[in-house]
Amino acid sequence: MNHLGVGPMPVTNHQVRLAARPVGLPKATDWSHTEESVGEPADGNVLVKVLYISLDPAMRGWMNEGRSYIPPVAIGEVMRALAIGRVIASRNPGFAVGDYVSGPFGVQEYAPSDAKGVMKVDPGLAPLPAHLGVLGMTGRTAYFGLLDVGRPKPDETVVVSAAAGAVGSVVGQIARIKGCRAVGIAGGGEKCRYLVNDLGFDAAIDYKSQDVRAALKEHCPSGIDVYFDNVGGDILEAALARLARHARIVICGAISQYNATGPQRGPSNYMALLVNRASMTGFLVGDYAARNGEATAALAAWLADGSIKSREDIVKGLRAFPDALSRLFTGGNVGKLVLEVASE
Amino acid sequence: MNHLGVGPMPVTNHQVRLAARPVGLPKATDWSHTEESVGEPADGNVLVKVLYISLDPAMRGWMNEGRSYIPPVAIGEVMRALAIGRVIASRNPGFAVGDYVSGPFGVQEYAPSDAKGVMKVDPGLAPLPAHLGVLGMTGRTAYFGLLDVGRPKPDETVVVSAAAGAVGSVVGQIARIKGCRAVGIAGGGEKCRYLVNDLGFDAAIDYKSQDVRAALKEHCPSGIDVYFDNVGGDILEAALARLARHARIVICGAISQYNATGPQRGPSNYMALLVNRASMTGFLVGDYAARNGEATAALAAWLADGSIKSREDIVKGLRAFPDALSRLFTGGNVGKLVLEVASE
Repeated sequence: MNHLGVGPMPVTNHQVRLAARPVGLPKATDWSHTEESVGEPADGNVLVKVLYISLDPAMRGWMNEGRSYIPPVAIGEVMRALAIGRVIASRNPGFAVGDYVSGPFGVQEYAPSDAKGVMKVDPGLAPLPAHLGVLGMTGRTAYFGLLDVGRPKPDETVVVSAAAGAVGSVVGQIARIKGCRAVGIAGGGEKCRYLVNDLGFDAAIDYKSQDVRAALKEHCPSGIDVYFDNVGGDILEAALARLARHARIVICGAISQYNATGPQRGPSNYMALLVNRASMTGFLVGDYAARNGEATAALAAWLADGSIKSREDIVKGLRAFPDALSRLFTGGNVGKLVLEVASE
Repeated sequence: MNHLGVGPMPVTNHQVRLAARPVGLPKATDWSHTEESVGEPADGNVLVKVLYISLDPAMRGWMNEGRSYIPPVAIGEVMRALAIGRVIASRNPGFAVGDYVSGPFGVQEYAPSDAKGVMKVDPGLAPLPAHLGVLGMTGRTAYFGLLDVGRPKPDETVVVSAAAGAVGSVVGQIARIKGCRAVGIAGGGEKCRYLVNDLGFDAAIDYKSQDVRAALKEHCPSGIDVYFDNVGGDILEAALARLARHARIVICGAISQYNATGPQRGPSNYMALLVNRASMTGFLVGDYAARNGEATAALAAWLADGSIKSREDIVKGLRAFPDALSRLFTGGNVGKLVLEVASE
């Protein structure tokens, strides 16, 4: 068995575990750093060397107690994370040593895996980190959320919040591909210029320096047909106040609320849904797993022909995980935030 | 021209006009009582003697300043209201003296009308007040809201708030007709007994004496598939907390919020839409006008075969209008609240 240069088993595996349920923004003491040795995989399993870890706002929800769409990460458990890695030992006929794979490998250097949820990744399509971004769950979230839930028609106006983030930046680009007007909301002039100059958004609104309601009025003269919401809070209310008739709001996330220590805040003007005969619909990308191939093929083609640009914001080293995660909630990243654990 | 015994024109017309924009629950000084004389209709117009006036929660919204789905009632204007009346003079070939009609006749004894929005009513189908209830806008609101927006399937669980009210009581009965489990939420034991014993709801929850969340858990063991919301506030949040996967929330009203003097309250747990891949959709019955005939035919048939029971709560006299309207917001009515201005 070729171990790809990792040397003899067992190997030492550094891990980041959830030490406490955070109150508000996660802090250093909510994590513990552990090491374990990992040996040969059991029958049917693979051992994956983790290369790149996906940092996602949804991780904050997984850290809370209580029922949601998946169970919470238990205290003491390795933090749940999607990642890209390379198979370094396999006792599963579906995977060979050397395969690049994506899966729920967790925040650690080596992942023993029963191969559930593990998919092969084609490194020829795009650099590996892009397989966590446009070609990964992020891209599929934008694809299914916008196209299946939002159902935009040509010439409609699509507004997306957290538009310079991993999902938002793809949503706006798909909207443009589909012949829609794309308006992004992001924090700061640099992100806004990136949206318009680099990604081809029709307009961008800087929520840190502009009056979002006034700017939506300016940039959406006939109202918002599709609002793809990643943030909740004030910005969701501003979008509700500017809906076109029969508008569709896609609820993808509510990052402004994830670290709230009091009760979460609901949109006080939700009755705009009635006035505008509009809808607000939540979705989870996992429900579309049977159509992953369709999404990946479309996204890869758009990436290849340049109609979608991919950008990853890469932070290095497993120990940087806690700080890197916090950046998602403070608006610190542009594009897909990825933790590089090992380059190969 | 036969004036149906009203005597020679002009006749004296008593009216209720909006005197001030209410803050909170409308009070006596928000109204003025006026009289005018009304003469022969102009060419193309009719003169209607108003018999029954529909009292609807939506009227509260029409009293506020600002853009909504229709313009507000102006200060000094006769209060807008749907009503049933009888044509007592006609210069419109579409209507004959003696015809029973429904239309936006306002809170007054006589309505000069250009016949816009006026429809003939068949008094043989049901007593006249029912034409403001099950056979009127109320019944159509329940019909289109539940069937078109809620799209219930047999064996699904339909929950409706303000279930003993005009719309809610019809929603639950249509749900039963369509093979669904119907659970009503209402205030007080008497209303709850009425829902279960008289209208055939499967269960009723008394929000004044029961823990609504616990009761929804008991009566909706596999979750709520369709929630038809008339009230907003706490009860909307309780329903969100009990959604089944792919649930549909129909936003018909938010009566708990209409008299709020601060900002309206949004559902703090709206992210339950994401967890449950659910939707929340507003609608306005006026959009379905082209299908009014379909709804009225279905509702009349159900009324005739006893599968829907109609109940009107009738208050007498034009001067009782302000107090009667307030009853809508204090839970004082069971069934459709109607103001009888004249019996014939």
